Amino acid sequence: MNNELHQKVLTWLKTAGNSLLASLESDLEVEEKTSASDLVTRMDKEVEAYFFREIKAAYPNHQVIGEEGITEEVKSTQGTLWIIDPIDGTLNYVKQHRCFAIMLGLYHDGQPIAGYIYDVAQGEIYHAWVGQGVYINGQALTPLPINSLSESLIIGNLVSFMTNWSNSQAVFEKALGLRYYGCSAYGIMAVIRGEAGLYLSRELKPWDFAAGLAIMTAMGYPVSRPDGRSLNILEASPVIFAHPNIYQEALQLMN
Amino acid sequence: MNNELHQKVLTWLKTAGNSLLASLESDLEVEEKTSASDLVTRMDKEVEAYFFREIKAAYPNHQVIGEEGITEEVKSTQGTLWIIDPIDGTLNYVKQHRCFAIMLGLYHDGQPIAGYIYDVAQGEIYHAWVGQGVYINGQALTPLPINSLSESLIIGNLVSFMTNWSNSQAVFEKALGLRYYGCSAYGIMAVIRGEAGLYLSRELKPWDFAAGLAIMTAMGYPVSRPDGRSLNILEASPVIFAHPNIYQEALQLMN
Repeated sequence: MNNELHQKVLTWLKTAGNSLLASLESDLEVEEKTSASDLVTRMDKEVEAYFFREIKAAYPNHQVIGEEGITEEVKSTQGTLWIIDPIDGTLNYVKQHRCFAIMLGLYHDGQPIAGYIYDVAQGEIYHAWVGQGVYINGQALTPLPINSLSESLIIGNLVSFMTNWSNSQAVFEKALGLRYYGCSAYGIMAVIRGEAGLYLSRELKPWDFAAGLAIMTAMGYPVSRPDGRSLNILEASPVIFAHPNIYQEALQLMN
Repeated sequence: MNNELHQKVLTWLKTAGNSLLASLESDLEVEEKTSASDLVTRMDKEVEAYFFREIKAAYPNHQVIGEEGITEEVKSTQGTLWIIDPIDGTLNYVKQHRCFAIMLGLYHDGQPIAGYIYDVAQGEIYHAWVGQGVYINGQALTPLPINSLSESLIIGNLVSFMTNWSNSQAVFEKALGLRYYGCSAYGIMAVIRGEAGLYLSRELKPWDFAAGLAIMTAMGYPVSRPDGRSLNILEASPVIFAHPNIYQEALQLMN
C-alpha cells in the first residue's frame, strides 16, 4: 500500500462526503439524463471535478475517468488510472438522502491496485489494496459466512428477473431471498460483508464496478461477466460479483 | 401520551435490542417454520416472552399478542391491546445482522394509540402517539416531500410485481423505482421518512402492520387494504401504507 496516497484519498473522500451531507440541507438542483430515473445533480459534477483536480495536482501523470465525463478521455489502461463514481445511487441521494456512495478504483496497467467505497450517510469507508485485506474505517472486516446459493440472499433489480435476463430467474428461485437497494455500491458492500451471496446487474459502467472489482480482487472473490469472461475496465458490461463458494453454482444456472 | 408507559416501553426496547445485538456474536440457533426463508430463532421467542412478562407485570389487565404465539389468545379488541413483533425481518437478522426491527403497536378498543419501531442495528427508535407527531430517538421527524407516484420510489417484493398481484405492475410502471429490503419495518420506516411513496405487501400479519398503522395514523397517513377497506387488527391482510399525496393514485391503479 502506498500510504501517502491512501491518506490523500481518505482526506478527499471525507471532504467530498461532508459536502454531500451539507448539500442535503439545500435544493439539490436535479437534471434528468436519459430518463426520469437517470439523474445528475450539481453535486455529482462538483464532486467529480474535485477529485479530478486533487488527483491531477498530486499525480500529474495519472489518468482519471469518471461518471460525469468532466475528467479526460482515456484510451489506454497503461500507467496508473483512477476510475471515479462521485455519487453512486444518485436517485437514492435525491429521494432518500441515504443509500448512496462515492466509489474510487485505482488500476495500474489495467490491473486492480486498490478500491474505496464511502457509504456517506452511514459514515463508513470500505477500502482494500490488493494483497492486504479489506477494511471498514480502518478496521479489518470479517465477512459473514456464505455456504451455498440456497442459503444466501441475492441482490439484483426487478426487471432483470421479470425478463429472465441471463436465466436469472433460476438463480432467484434457488436463492433464499432477494433484496434490492438501487445502488451498485450497496450490492457490492453486501457481498463484501457476506450479507448476500451475489450481486448481479445487466449493465454496469466502469465507475460502477471498478472499486468493487478492486476490493473483491483483494479478497480473492470472483467478479466477471455472467458468461465467466473478465471485465474490461474501460467498457460497460453485465457483471456478477459473487462469494467464491457460490460463484460456479450461479454461473452454471446463468449459462 | 402516557409518559410512564412510554418510559417503560423505551427501557424494554433498549433491553431487548441489546440482547439482540449481543446474540449476533454467537450461534443464532435457527429453526425453519414453513420454509427455508421463514425462520424463527431462539431470540424471537425470548424477546417476545420478555415483553409479555414485562407488560403483564406492569399492566395485568392489558392483552398481548405476538408473532411467536407465546403470549395469549385474544378474541376481542376491547380494552388495551399490545401487538408485538419481537424480530421483524428474522431472515435479515440471521443473514445480514442488520435490517431488522422490534415493533410494538398499542391499541385501545380497537383504535391505535401508539406505535414503536426499533431499528436495532441502526440504534433508532421511531415512535408516535396518536395526536402527537412522530419522533426518531425523541427528535421530531420532518419527512422528505412526496408529490406524486411518478416522482416516488416504492417498496414491495419481487413476486408481487412478477405475478401482477392487485395490478401492482401498473404501480411499478408509474413509479420512479422500486426498492426491497425484506423487512416490513424497513418499508414502513421509508414511507414515514418520505424516502418512498408507498409500501405494499400481499399479506401482513397483525404484528407486521400494527406499529406502522399506529404511527401512520398519528401522522395522518392512510393505511388500508388495496381495495381501500380498513384493516382488522386481529387478522392477516394485504396492506398498502402510503403518503397521503399518492394514496388515491395508487388505489385507482390497483382496482
